Amino acid sequence: MAPVKKGILERLNAGEVVIGDGGFVFALEKRGYVKAGPWTPEATVTHPEAVRQLHREFLRAGANVMQTFTFYASDDKLENRGQNLKLTGVQINEAACDLAREVASEGDALVAGGVCQTPSYLSCKSETEVKAIFKKQLDVFMKKNVDFLIAEYFEHVEEAEWAVQVLKTSGKPVAACLCIGPEGDMHGVSPAECGVRLVKAGAQIIGVNCHFDPMTCVEAVRKMKEGVEKARLKVHYMVQPLAFHTPDCNCQGFIDLPEFPFALEPRILTRWDMHKYAREAYKTGIRFIGGCCGFEPYHIRAVAEELAAERGITPPGSEKHGMWGSGLEMHTKPWVRARARRDYWETIMPASGRPKCPSLSTPEGWGVTKGHADLLQHKEATSSQEMKHVLEMQKKAKSSA
Amino acid sequence: MAPVKKGILERLNAGEVVIGDGGFVFALEKRGYVKAGPWTPEATVTHPEAVRQLHREFLRAGANVMQTFTFYASDDKLENRGQNLKLTGVQINEAACDLAREVASEGDALVAGGVCQTPSYLSCKSETEVKAIFKKQLDVFMKKNVDFLIAEYFEHVEEAEWAVQVLKTSGKPVAACLCIGPEGDMHGVSPAECGVRLVKAGAQIIGVNCHFDPMTCVEAVRKMKEGVEKARLKVHYMVQPLAFHTPDCNCQGFIDLPEFPFALEPRILTRWDMHKYAREAYKTGIRFIGGCCGFEPYHIRAVAEELAAERGITPPGSEKHGMWGSGLEMHTKPWVRARARRDYWETIMPASGRPKCPSLSTPEGWGVTKGHADLLQHKEATSSQEMKHVLEMQKKAKSSA
Amino acid sequence: MAPVKKGILERLNAGEVVIGDGGFVFALEKRGYVKAGPWTPEATVTHPEAVRQLHREFLRAGANVMQTFTFYASDDKLENRGQNLKLTGVQINEAACDLAREVASEGDALVAGGVCQTPSYLSCKSETEVKAIFKKQLDVFMKKNVDFLIAEYFEHVEEAEWAVQVLKTSGKPVAACLCIGPEGDMHGVSPAECGVRLVKAGAQIIGVNCHFDPMTCVEAVRKMKEGVEKARLKVHYMVQPLAFHTPDCNCQGFIDLPEFPFALEPRILTRWDMHKYAREAYKTGIRFIGGCCGFEPYHIRAVAEELAAERGITPPGSEKHGMWGSGLEMHTKPWVRARARRDYWETIMPASGRPKCPSLSTPEGWGVTKGHADLLQHKEATSSQEMKHVLEMQKKAKSSA
Amino acid sequence: MAPVKKGILERLNAGEVVIGDGGFVFALEKRGYVKAGPWTPEATVTHPEAVRQLHREFLRAGANVMQTFTFYASDDKLENRGQNLKLTGVQINEAACDLAREVASEGDALVAGGVCQTPSYLSCKSETEVKAIFKKQLDVFMKKNVDFLIAEYFEHVEEAEWAVQVLKTSGKPVAACLCIGPEGDMHGVSPAECGVRLVKAGAQIIGVNCHFDPMTCVEAVRKMKEGVEKARLKVHYMVQPLAFHTPDCNCQGFIDLPEFPFALEPRILTRWDMHKYAREAYKTGIRFIGGCCGFEPYHIRAVAEELAAERGITPPGSEKHGMWGSGLEMHTKPWVRARARRDYWETIMPASGRPKCPSLSTPEGWGVTKGHADLLQHKEATSSQEMKHVLEMQKKAKSSA
Repeated sequence: MAPVKKGILERLNAGEVVIGDGGFVFALEKRGYVKAGPWTPEATVTHPEAVRQLHREFLRAGANVMQTFTFYASDDKLENRGQNLKLTGVQINEAACDLAREVASEGDALVAGGVCQTPSYLSCKSETEVKAIFKKQLDVFMKKNVDFLIAEYFEHVEEAEWAVQVLKTSGKPVAACLCIGPEGDMHGVSPAECGVRLVKAGAQIIGVNCHFDPMTCVEAVRKMKEGVEKARLKVHYMVQPLAFHTPDCNCQGFIDLPEFPFALEPRILTRWDMHKYAREAYKTGIRFIGGCCGFEPYHIRAVAEELAAERGITPPGSEKHGMWGSGLEMHTKPWVRARARRDYWETIMPASGRPKCPSLSTPEGWGVTKGHADLLQHKEATSSQEMKHVLEMQKKAKSSA
Repeated sequence: MAPVKKGILERLNAGEVVIGDGGFVFALEKRGYVKAGPWTPEATVTHPEAVRQLHREFLRAGANVMQTFTFYASDDKLENRGQNLKLTGVQINEAACDLAREVASEGDALVAGGVCQTPSYLSCKSETEVKAIFKKQLDVFMKKNVDFLIAEYFEHVEEAEWAVQVLKTSGKPVAACLCIGPEGDMHGVSPAECGVRLVKAGAQIIGVNCHFDPMTCVEAVRKMKEGVEKARLKVHYMVQPLAFHTPDCNCQGFIDLPEFPFALEPRILTRWDMHKYAREAYKTGIRFIGGCCGFEPYHIRAVAEELAAERGITPPGSEKHGMWGSGLEMHTKPWVRARARRDYWETIMPASGRPKCPSLSTPEGWGVTKGHADLLQHKEATSSQEMKHVLEMQKKAKSSA
Repeated sequence: MAPVKKGILERLNAGEVVIGDGGFVFALEKRGYVKAGPWTPEATVTHPEAVRQLHREFLRAGANVMQTFTFYASDDKLENRGQNLKLTGVQINEAACDLAREVASEGDALVAGGVCQTPSYLSCKSETEVKAIFKKQLDVFMKKNVDFLIAEYFEHVEEAEWAVQVLKTSGKPVAACLCIGPEGDMHGVSPAECGVRLVKAGAQIIGVNCHFDPMTCVEAVRKMKEGVEKARLKVHYMVQPLAFHTPDCNCQGFIDLPEFPFALEPRILTRWDMHKYAREAYKTGIRFIGGCCGFEPYHIRAVAEELAAERGITPPGSEKHGMWGSGLEMHTKPWVRARARRDYWETIMPASGRPKCPSLSTPEGWGVTKGHADLLQHKEATSSQEMKHVLEMQKKAKSSA
Repeated sequence: MAPVKKGILERLNAGEVVIGDGGFVFALEKRGYVKAGPWTPEATVTHPEAVRQLHREFLRAGANVMQTFTFYASDDKLENRGQNLKLTGVQINEAACDLAREVASEGDALVAGGVCQTPSYLSCKSETEVKAIFKKQLDVFMKKNVDFLIAEYFEHVEEAEWAVQVLKTSGKPVAACLCIGPEGDMHGVSPAECGVRLVKAGAQIIGVNCHFDPMTCVEAVRKMKEGVEKARLKVHYMVQPLAFHTPDCNCQGFIDLPEFPFALEPRILTRWDMHKYAREAYKTGIRFIGGCCGFEPYHIRAVAEELAAERGITPPGSEKHGMWGSGLEMHTKPWVRARARRDYWETIMPASGRPKCPSLSTPEGWGVTKGHADLLQHKEATSSQEMKHVLEMQKKAKSSA
């Protein structure tokens, strides 16, 4: 019988660093198992071996958390978006839990059941209706006895509060992440206020995931932390950012970049960028440090390697990775061997190989030309008239760029 | 019992397009199963599930060839480089064949046994010794009854000829690829002459793999083809390039770029770049079209989608990919939906998000400042005196950049 | 006899747009008459024809103000910096006035006597001493009867106040410009407070010159304006920015960019950038619009052309310039003729032709790593110990970039 | 009475380095005296002080040659293009000679009368007609007794030969420059053959001017030289390139870049780039080294400073320029003083300050998609049908970029 693992709060309360995993939808899209656009996770049922393998790779890279692959797996999302198989939400969510548990038991990892923002909220359904959606996923997580819960990827703090309130009923530890930057949520609520509201709703761990690059996400969590500390509250912090450089984002994040989602390659972070991210997150006081869209296993491994001294362990996957490129000492060519040193990789400014491309883009969308309030009113706008309007705004934005 | 599959030559003789798979060492390095530097494939024995899964993803992406993961799996390489496990070369090569065969039988794919350049040649061992190395791998391929053979990643056409001569003794179809660009091999032999020599050595399929970006590799094959046709010979052509943009390479390819191998991210091709590559390769008369380092399954899928009309089929993985981004039609935001069209992605100039980085680099190494002949004499130079010399040359090259 | 010209305040009070000239030190450095480093204007005596010609070109480009070329022409500066001729400050200042007057009388331009920040202030001399320096230049301006006075290029609002107080004694209109960005002066005084203090000191026109690119300078003036209006004061506004793109500056401006002053070429604004600048300045409520370092006559002409409708005139130099490139209609090649249109030039994203260069730099100096207060204490620090310290800080800043 | 100066051939025969001046049309366009599009030099009559001043600046920068500002001053060009004043070609050419002579006599410079390509040739006029055009300008040069003659800016070697044949009748030394790159002239004649033909036509100095950046022009002259030496002929070499980086040009040069002529700023060479150019030209065996479009006086001064040791003199203008930035030793800020050294400026990679712009462009025009032969047939094509065709080709070129 396996020894009982320390829970998420035990670890954080003890001051340990917890390494998260990376995002599944982007990684599995590249591997052929998720469709960009709907981004739904029916692969848990149709291709479990692919999902299982990705879990294993993150575990091997040092992750202490196996998040169930239940992104956009609420019933209202599955119905609306490409769920044309005969699969029920319960099936998908249960399979996700089983896969996460199976791999978690192969190492020192916990299983976290995850919920995220819903179409119901964006189309102005009532608090009762939205909460019922979350409850349905929670029922699966309870049946499958996950170790803790994560409510993540919320653009509006209000919906995140509702999610936390539902998840809290379980008695399990609850983490909550918004997908916001330092400018705050889509209603214009500041990170500081968002942080306070999430704590008051009952979350024991709060933070930010997705939508922005690592340094921007850490900055947003830092602002949350300032707000929470000013309110004399106490909570743990987490961050799971993109693995894409996005200095040119507006308040809505990488969705509005013209490269989203099929031309983001030149923005992918190197492993050395990840060292800087891990250090910065640590210095900011964040102890649950993971990744979201764009993260591949080697990105998580780099986070684990940067914090190896603090954690007292290196991940299993480091058997296949020399620290700071030391594996190159075995390379045939002497000038490649000369790259087997920390200062080489810490200071490299990698070229794009694309001389006809710019280094920054101009974001599109309402976020560019309209404020938060307007944006909120539109939400899921779909009429062709609005589409025309948006295209005109984009045209203007470009010509004035 | 499964129907007998058409062989590689039957397909090519019939004018069919054969889709290759992508490179394993880079993909598995990112997943945590290969160590950069030695780049050896002991994972076939230690982590078969990871190798199997990657095979499956390429199959799903449309690949008709499962290349055995036997790169750098010759005995002389395994001994020198990090092979500190108690595994023999035979074990590693046999496991690789079994994995490739297992997955190939799940779809319309053939198994190709692969050999590549050896330390023995680079350290000036005799033809007899070098050929013995290839023979040992061939024995495994024959025992495991692979469908055909590929000799690839040769910097010197002479060694490739020796490999072909050995492989030919099997009676199986033999393909041969050099890792050269349009300037020719490391002895300064032109692509045209290389092509003729490979055909005369007995290869039925010839081409180029690794070291350069797709358009450069296609150009090198085009030059091979011109030479072969001028010599009134007949052969099939293949190409398996990098998935990195490398317009700034010298004759030695991406190894000499300062970003190799840990900061190549900004150079990764998009799926749309792959459409252009597949079309260009096809127009050049190449019919065996695959990938090497940097290729992920979605890159191969893009090749298969570009040539779907010519091949009469789309790959299984396209169930999770709308042609030209059509999956975005289901996106929440109208300006993202507006990206669901071919001309948007065909003309996008993706930003790097790295305004402090350049778009091109200056290559390092002997290739920069010394000719082919000098290079040849040095080969595996390792003395500290030479190292010092190289570092000085690099310094000069940088200051005169 | 020439008609009496309207004074600067009459024009501004009437709501007219006044076009300034461009910076002399950079333009004359490129022509061979000013030495970078000391930047002193002895050319007014040694090469009057060169100074006169530059005045004429700005007049022809549409400038309504001929600023005396008396930058860094205070006695304390001339003594310290390269003034190895037997010329007195009085001679240089007088010659500058004569040249400005001579050309001003050839068109619709006023003569403005200019003073700027002094080494005396930076080396902590007393208010009395610093004011005596300004007084000496003012005596020349009064003798030569300039039309109004400009105190410009002050990093510290305190010194600018002293200058204004001295200049006010003349009874002539006084303009005052700081070389600050939106972050404020080198003591950390905000633009809003700087504005209020300059108005209270007696300036009738206030604004910003040099150190930052046009859009940044306009933004700084906008902040000044907000402060002044909030304080219920009334004043006119001016702006004379760099003609270099400097989005990567820190609070000290372009001096700290590694390209200053000999590698700024890739940053030079096009004439079309100037159209955007002129429009933005106008929309912000600024009515005295000119230029500083980097401005060539065609840049000023572009400002005048953008505001031609508002001003009711085009400059004389427009006889040699088709609006929006219309002169290209006479070009030999049809695809060049196709560029003779506004939307072509308004939206062009010009390439640098330098693929190995980045698009942004990392600023150097104290401003990067230390705050305003520290900076202030150091001021003219010159000891080798400090130099060593700075080089170390730069090294660190680079490695953490 | 002034001492008789050494002639151009005496200097070159003695192995001296002769420094040329910079281009007048671009420099005077920026100063407000030349109209882009027609590019004609009527300013010699209407604004002689501006032309004289530019001559003086180049003389001061070290130029040994004052080229008459007679670019596009042939009668056929003046009639067609914007010459709407009542000035005759003779007046313009005579005034140009007088200004060049006036300034040449102020220093160690010779006067060179210049002719360039004609609309008559491009519209397929006969050899007799074209030669008559050149003869008319030559008559002025003889009357004004210039020191030698330069036929420059020819896209077709044939027309240059005609020009040389006419100029040779004068008995004065004749130099001839094509505006071609390493790919040869617009009929597809190689630089090697062009060189031989120009020598055989009678030119004593041959080379390349305009259209390409310095390194490309030097490369083209090197190819000319190889051809001439292979033909066992003897001649002197000259080069007068652009001061713009143009690595992305096609065979037609910078005209086809989308930035031509109003957005070339980011491409302007620094003075340090000029040092490299001067050294490379010298090492290639070129001894008449000057500049064309984009050159400002400080660019020529940098050429003269780089070759100061070889020439035994520094130019007068160097009194206002510390070698390798040494003037910065007097700067206030220590980190700017730290830039007063050669290796700083020799290795700087200057940023553009334009993160949304690319580093390379895609050229437009026939040169992109059609060969030399087609191009030749079109020449001055102007019909709207052709225009439409060109725009379509551009569109295609862009979408396939």
